[in-house]
Amino acid sequence: MESISYIINTLYAIFAMTLIIFMVPGFAMLEAGIVRTKNVTTVLTINTLIYSIASLTFLLFGYSLAFGDFGSEIMSKWAVFLFQMAFVGKVVNIMSGGVSERAKIIPLGLFTVIMASVLYPLVVNITWGANFLKNTILELSMYDLAGSTIIHSTGGWALLAAILIIGARKGRYTKEGAIRVIPASNIPLVTLGAFLLWIGWFGFNGGSVGSITSKENADLVALTILNTNTAGLSGAIMVAIIMHLVYKKLDLTMILNGALGGLVSITAGADLYNIYTPILIGALGGCLVVIGVSFFDKMKIDDPVGALSVHLLNGIWGTIAVGIFASNDKITLLGQLKGILVIGVFAFVSSFVTLYLINKIMPLRAGNDEEMQGLDVEECGIEAYPEFKRAF
Amino acid sequence: MESISYIINTLYAIFAMTLIIFMVPGFAMLEAGIVRTKNVTTVLTINTLIYSIASLTFLLFGYSLAFGDFGSEIMSKWAVFLFQMAFVGKVVNIMSGGVSERAKIIPLGLFTVIMASVLYPLVVNITWGANFLKNTILELSMYDLAGSTIIHSTGGWALLAAILIIGARKGRYTKEGAIRVIPASNIPLVTLGAFLLWIGWFGFNGGSVGSITSKENADLVALTILNTNTAGLSGAIMVAIIMHLVYKKLDLTMILNGALGGLVSITAGADLYNIYTPILIGALGGCLVVIGVSFFDKMKIDDPVGALSVHLLNGIWGTIAVGIFASNDKITLLGQLKGILVIGVFAFVSSFVTLYLINKIMPLRAGNDEEMQGLDVEECGIEAYPEFKRAF
Amino acid sequence: MESISYIINTLYAIFAMTLIIFMVPGFAMLEAGIVRTKNVTTVLTINTLIYSIASLTFLLFGYSLAFGDFGSEIMSKWAVFLFQMAFVGKVVNIMSGGVSERAKIIPLGLFTVIMASVLYPLVVNITWGANFLKNTILELSMYDLAGSTIIHSTGGWALLAAILIIGARKGRYTKEGAIRVIPASNIPLVTLGAFLLWIGWFGFNGGSVGSITSKENADLVALTILNTNTAGLSGAIMVAIIMHLVYKKLDLTMILNGALGGLVSITAGADLYNIYTPILIGALGGCLVVIGVSFFDKMKIDDPVGALSVHLLNGIWGTIAVGIFASNDKITLLGQLKGILVIGVFAFVSSFVTLYLINKIMPLRAGNDEEMQGLDVEECGIEAYPEFKRAF
Repeated sequence: MESISYIINTLYAIFAMTLIIFMVPGFAMLEAGIVRTKNVTTVLTINTLIYSIASLTFLLFGYSLAFGDFGSEIMSKWAVFLFQMAFVGKVVNIMSGGVSERAKIIPLGLFTVIMASVLYPLVVNITWGANFLKNTILELSMYDLAGSTIIHSTGGWALLAAILIIGARKGRYTKEGAIRVIPASNIPLVTLGAFLLWIGWFGFNGGSVGSITSKENADLVALTILNTNTAGLSGAIMVAIIMHLVYKKLDLTMILNGALGGLVSITAGADLYNIYTPILIGALGGCLVVIGVSFFDKMKIDDPVGALSVHLLNGIWGTIAVGIFASNDKITLLGQLKGILVIGVFAFVSSFVTLYLINKIMPLRAGNDEEMQGLDVEECGIEAYPEFKRAF
Repeated sequence: MESISYIINTLYAIFAMTLIIFMVPGFAMLEAGIVRTKNVTTVLTINTLIYSIASLTFLLFGYSLAFGDFGSEIMSKWAVFLFQMAFVGKVVNIMSGGVSERAKIIPLGLFTVIMASVLYPLVVNITWGANFLKNTILELSMYDLAGSTIIHSTGGWALLAAILIIGARKGRYTKEGAIRVIPASNIPLVTLGAFLLWIGWFGFNGGSVGSITSKENADLVALTILNTNTAGLSGAIMVAIIMHLVYKKLDLTMILNGALGGLVSITAGADLYNIYTPILIGALGGCLVVIGVSFFDKMKIDDPVGALSVHLLNGIWGTIAVGIFASNDKITLLGQLKGILVIGVFAFVSSFVTLYLINKIMPLRAGNDEEMQGLDVEECGIEAYPEFKRAF
Repeated sequence: MESISYIINTLYAIFAMTLIIFMVPGFAMLEAGIVRTKNVTTVLTINTLIYSIASLTFLLFGYSLAFGDFGSEIMSKWAVFLFQMAFVGKVVNIMSGGVSERAKIIPLGLFTVIMASVLYPLVVNITWGANFLKNTILELSMYDLAGSTIIHSTGGWALLAAILIIGARKGRYTKEGAIRVIPASNIPLVTLGAFLLWIGWFGFNGGSVGSITSKENADLVALTILNTNTAGLSGAIMVAIIMHLVYKKLDLTMILNGALGGLVSITAGADLYNIYTPILIGALGGCLVVIGVSFFDKMKIDDPVGALSVHLLNGIWGTIAVGIFASNDKITLLGQLKGILVIGVFAFVSSFVTLYLINKIMPLRAGNDEEMQGLDVEECGIEAYPEFKRAF
């Protein structure tokens, strides 16, 4: 009996991990579709290297720092590792997307090493992991099922640090303060990427329940996936309604970001709600995306993919939502806010310092000429669509 | 023991559901690849909203109308819901693809609400569901494992109604009666979409067996997936042979539609046949696609993606095939034909009336100028490939 | 208890099979992205037909030749068949990719019939299958978990035979001996394809463990997938380092081929190593890709997708690696080399003869004019991107 449970949990973790790995091409396609054609290969190369570097350094260093050592009673320790490994690259993906079209590959690769072997593992250590803060005043009681704060806000804070150091794309904001719209170059890729992420989220949140081998757990897994999906639906619909009412145009990139915002917002507590609450949480997540994209643009914080709105704002909102909609003796709004604050300060400061130091050694930002002609030629030596004639 | 069965069935339903969700990007990529570049964003937006609206309204209203209430003995009720929810959007996907390049997004969204909350649930109610026709003269005895009629023909009838109301694309048929070929704009997307659909079908048909937790059921699940795949193979090969012999050109869009036609044709009875029968059923399904595409064009029924041939004709054929190849005491050809007729009349009439009324409130069809310049600019405000220079 | 094991193994095999089927669009997108736009539809059509023809002929003839008859004690025989069927097309995929841009569809389809019904089944027969060489001097003792030799080298040898018969693309090598670089036409497709293949590999290697229904087997499955992934990571990183140090450009197509080379190299023994050995094996796999691509080009063996380096060289290396890093009483380096040799000779000679004979009946190679204008118009009658203006 115990053996059957072990086997089924292992199989379930492998299934969930596989879904999360679909997020690798998911992020890659989403970002490749959003940036201009002259930067597409660079973005794809960054995505490929982030997955490779983050996963390997997590195997070598990060996992032990986060969890102590390899081991599990309820399923294969290798399946547990695979599941956790599938998360790591996402943190850097969130960050790299937002500095697209001007950040260079090698320094981002270096940052990936540090994020995956030290920074992110420390965040995991004090939440899901060994917890070196246990019994100290900083011990966190935050509930965060699959990482609204631990994954998404961490990546979002790192991105904010990166944008402050790297700056906006050339020509994005004119001297007169106007915002120049830079349209996404390939909408089918954006759509494909968004849906691969969406599907990956089933593994992300569903797998985070940890075990499927009791009737209660099986119900909880299914409920978690249902609620995850519902928040995505609701985020998409909310943004579509806003787009239609305010702009009379159904901007698909915003609608898809609304879905992703909804998905981030449900990630902290998808297992805690009834089946209707995610409609509200996801809809507010969608609103946050619309407000956030506009807000960051006004602040001249240039984030081509909208990652700050999708991941940082909704990561915070999702973690607060747990405190509001699921508060019980163990979960309090205050505990949630403390978690957001502690991890936020740590993620932002440590990322800022790391990126600042990397920037001293090798500039994070491409040169002006390189940025104008697109990063692909200089960084990768190959263009994304060499045979296609450019309209401009 | 009962608990283990519950857990494994829940896991299996989640797996099957996930495969079906891959059909969302599947349909989106297929249709985005077939339509002209100027309508690609619109098609992708419709696909995104159909999934979002259909799933959410099914959660709120449709599921209860179809099945009574949430509940299941053999697995988590949430897993059962997720599996059923994954089906709903497909019905509208089938319909929306065929009115591409001239139908507007908002009225299609409105139709999605009605289809997913009332029309489709009523069809499910009298077949897989609570069955309010029980013990009446209209009670159906049709066997339809995963929806050759219930999903595919229903969507197909709705499409036929929509085309009759909306009409053909401008310039598709000349005044002299000639047919102008409008080539697919992106063949890799068509191919990707078709294979995502194909893989999704394993979940569609395999999951419809309902339980995997006995040796017999495990065999039946594997046989169902094997037979599903075989019909797809056979449909593709049959169309390739016809293309080669008749036209000397291997038109890939037709070959892929042949595979999809084969997959639709096996959907009603994939669990009932030996491993060789699907070769015949799928090959005939492929033939039907070739004949159908040509037939509907002669009738000036303009269906850009061939959905009437793939889904309506093959939905009917697949349901008849059960009566021919699998007839036993419970399954009769007459019972199959009665099901096709009753559901066909209901789906066509109810869709026609609904679309007719929607069309009175807000026109389904884009204006002439909008259609000429492409729907993307007016409907979505963004082009699919803004940086790529058009050849014409 | 035995019944539960049967059910879980069936479910696991279906899961693994499904992942492998993602390699069908995986190969298709990878190859469609690498070839020039004028040959994209042809490549996609070949990929579609290979899957269709190989799978169907394997069902009709090949499986019995390889394994005797349908049957299994530990899971549904249909699941076993599906899992094995998912492999077959890959052998021809490996081969067809390398003769892209000049090989015609119909003769490749004919070769697929013979490969899937006779040649590959014979290779499987003497290794994983019924083994008609048993107790003869040719009996093999090679260990090859998921087919470094049986799948990848077999496909690679067939490709080498095909290139020797078909020759290089027009203009690839100038009379003066220079090599003209032909850039990949669509890098996002290459990336998407590579990651779909990567994910498919989890099913390929993980599923080849054969059973998951004991604690030891569950561990072995998870370890196998972990090691598989690690070798891919390592291959990608190794090539990135070489690219950066030697060329100062991070050529993404090479990095992705490095990942694939790593994945091929681990395929023979992913279940045999500790978690660190795959780093070394995959890194050497990546090196082999860089060396191989350059070597074959110097030999004027024109392989547009780098399949000889990825699949043939790394197939050999992966099989040798088992002999080096995992040798025990049953596994010897000599036994591995014997397997490589016997299967290599058989695969190369039988493929060469088959292709030679096919070439006599119908030329494998497109005519000069057809090659210059691209194969799509003549072979398929449809262009891949008709609305996009070509830059050259």
